[in-house]
Amino acid sequence: MRFVNFMKEGRATLGVRDGNDVRVLGTEPMESVLARGVDLVQWALSRASEEKQPMEGLQLLPPLQRPPKILCVGLNFADHTKESNFEQPAYPTLFLRVNTSLVAHDQPMIRPAVTDSEGLDFEGEIAVVIGKGGRHIAKDDALTHVAGYSLFNDGSVREYQFKTPQWTVGKNFDATGAFGPDLITPDELPAGVKGLLLETRVNGEVVQSANTDEMVFDVASLISIISEAITLEPGDVIVSGTPSGIGWARTPKLLMKAGDVCEVSVEGMGTLCNVIADERPIR
Amino acid sequence: MRFVNFMKEGRATLGVRDGNDVRVLGTEPMESVLARGVDLVQWALSRASEEKQPMEGLQLLPPLQRPPKILCVGLNFADHTKESNFEQPAYPTLFLRVNTSLVAHDQPMIRPAVTDSEGLDFEGEIAVVIGKGGRHIAKDDALTHVAGYSLFNDGSVREYQFKTPQWTVGKNFDATGAFGPDLITPDELPAGVKGLLLETRVNGEVVQSANTDEMVFDVASLISIISEAITLEPGDVIVSGTPSGIGWARTPKLLMKAGDVCEVSVEGMGTLCNVIADERPIR
Repeated sequence: MRFVNFMKEGRATLGVRDGNDVRVLGTEPMESVLARGVDLVQWALSRASEEKQPMEGLQLLPPLQRPPKILCVGLNFADHTKESNFEQPAYPTLFLRVNTSLVAHDQPMIRPAVTDSEGLDFEGEIAVVIGKGGRHIAKDDALTHVAGYSLFNDGSVREYQFKTPQWTVGKNFDATGAFGPDLITPDELPAGVKGLLLETRVNGEVVQSANTDEMVFDVASLISIISEAITLEPGDVIVSGTPSGIGWARTPKLLMKAGDVCEVSVEGMGTLCNVIADERPIR
Repeated sequence: MRFVNFMKEGRATLGVRDGNDVRVLGTEPMESVLARGVDLVQWALSRASEEKQPMEGLQLLPPLQRPPKILCVGLNFADHTKESNFEQPAYPTLFLRVNTSLVAHDQPMIRPAVTDSEGLDFEGEIAVVIGKGGRHIAKDDALTHVAGYSLFNDGSVREYQFKTPQWTVGKNFDATGAFGPDLITPDELPAGVKGLLLETRVNGEVVQSANTDEMVFDVASLISIISEAITLEPGDVIVSGTPSGIGWARTPKLLMKAGDVCEVSVEGMGTLCNVIADERPIR
């Protein structure tokens, strides 16, 4: 089942896809639905509206707008670790995103109006949304904690990412982290989203292409290892890492500018598409 | 004015201190009060209860339990940067904490049950709570965006902090970030908490002692610089950095174990006190 979050009569509204249409579920946010511990598929079957409306023309929102946390995994594909000039760590390289950095499918990813940055870089990834929380989750049980999967473009302002030893600011400019379009329940996908082709395109040209089997830490491992330290809560998002091909590591660099179109596709999961726009001039 | 968040009849309740007593304000969370844009002092004057109850014996909670973001500043005192073997960056070194890492005054800070960690390290700091949000906030206006200040102990699991290039996991174990006891409005303190003695003690012995004037980036600069990249929201917390003296940089190392008592004091702001406890054995 595929859930979408969209604007309807000025309010964020959850819906479930029915082909190219959507049936309305209501205005309770996904974070709150998940916190109640409901089974998403059963819940949607019990309350989807009779009427359908076309997906086309809907203004989508991120599948969750205020997840309790957004845990991102760096250096999770060996080729990307190498192109980034890091040693491959034996533990997941975690960084965090804040909610103000999120942007929906089909909305512009914003290249910030900072003078010392050339452009915005892309990172195609899969986002894992936690359904059932927990601490010290065993790897064998980990996938039962997943509510669904989505796509993510971990847009990065590289000059800022490397201003200090911590990447935080380069990963957290407003409206740089694209998330969507659908939240897809696990029954529609291979267990742990294994064996899927992940591809990123800029203006139609393939810039990243890898199989999810190449992840250093797979989804079950990430959930288990993170939860050794941190209680996972319903609605938490784990952004699972990007393969090689980023623009910053190329010669010459390929950084996105206003008007460029970036797409992240995963086999069976659809496409997250965003145009790049410049931040409006300051004051 | 000094606000406290405490448990009353099983519910998180806001109160305002009146000497050693507290007057009840209600159960609306501070995050929500701040998001409504109220002036905290006027709001408290208009609705504080007639009856008082003694502070003693109250179970305090963190001043905010679910701030929209917790932005921490590393390497913000030159002596600490040096003891940590980093070059002093020309930009604030930002990392993030998640809400599950918070713990209240007088509650145990938890040393995790991970086999490859010796103990928990202390970092005494001042927390800045944002009242009025914004983006591209000018330094001259920055302090008008502050709702209040509190104390923070940025408890760190050093072996995990340095497992990868990103410090995230070592800074985010459950119940390692002590926050409280009071949220103090700016009218009670020097502008930008300048010129105050910050001291951390372990079992009564002074282990960190510095003046807040030594911050590389002062509070107004932090708000202005962070907001160049990230929209600040009401209730966001900026944890402003620790001075030298951390246990990890000592020979021999001084890492806290179960039963140790750690206190963070700032002149005019009171004391944040926590005992260290071991995580209960897993499974």
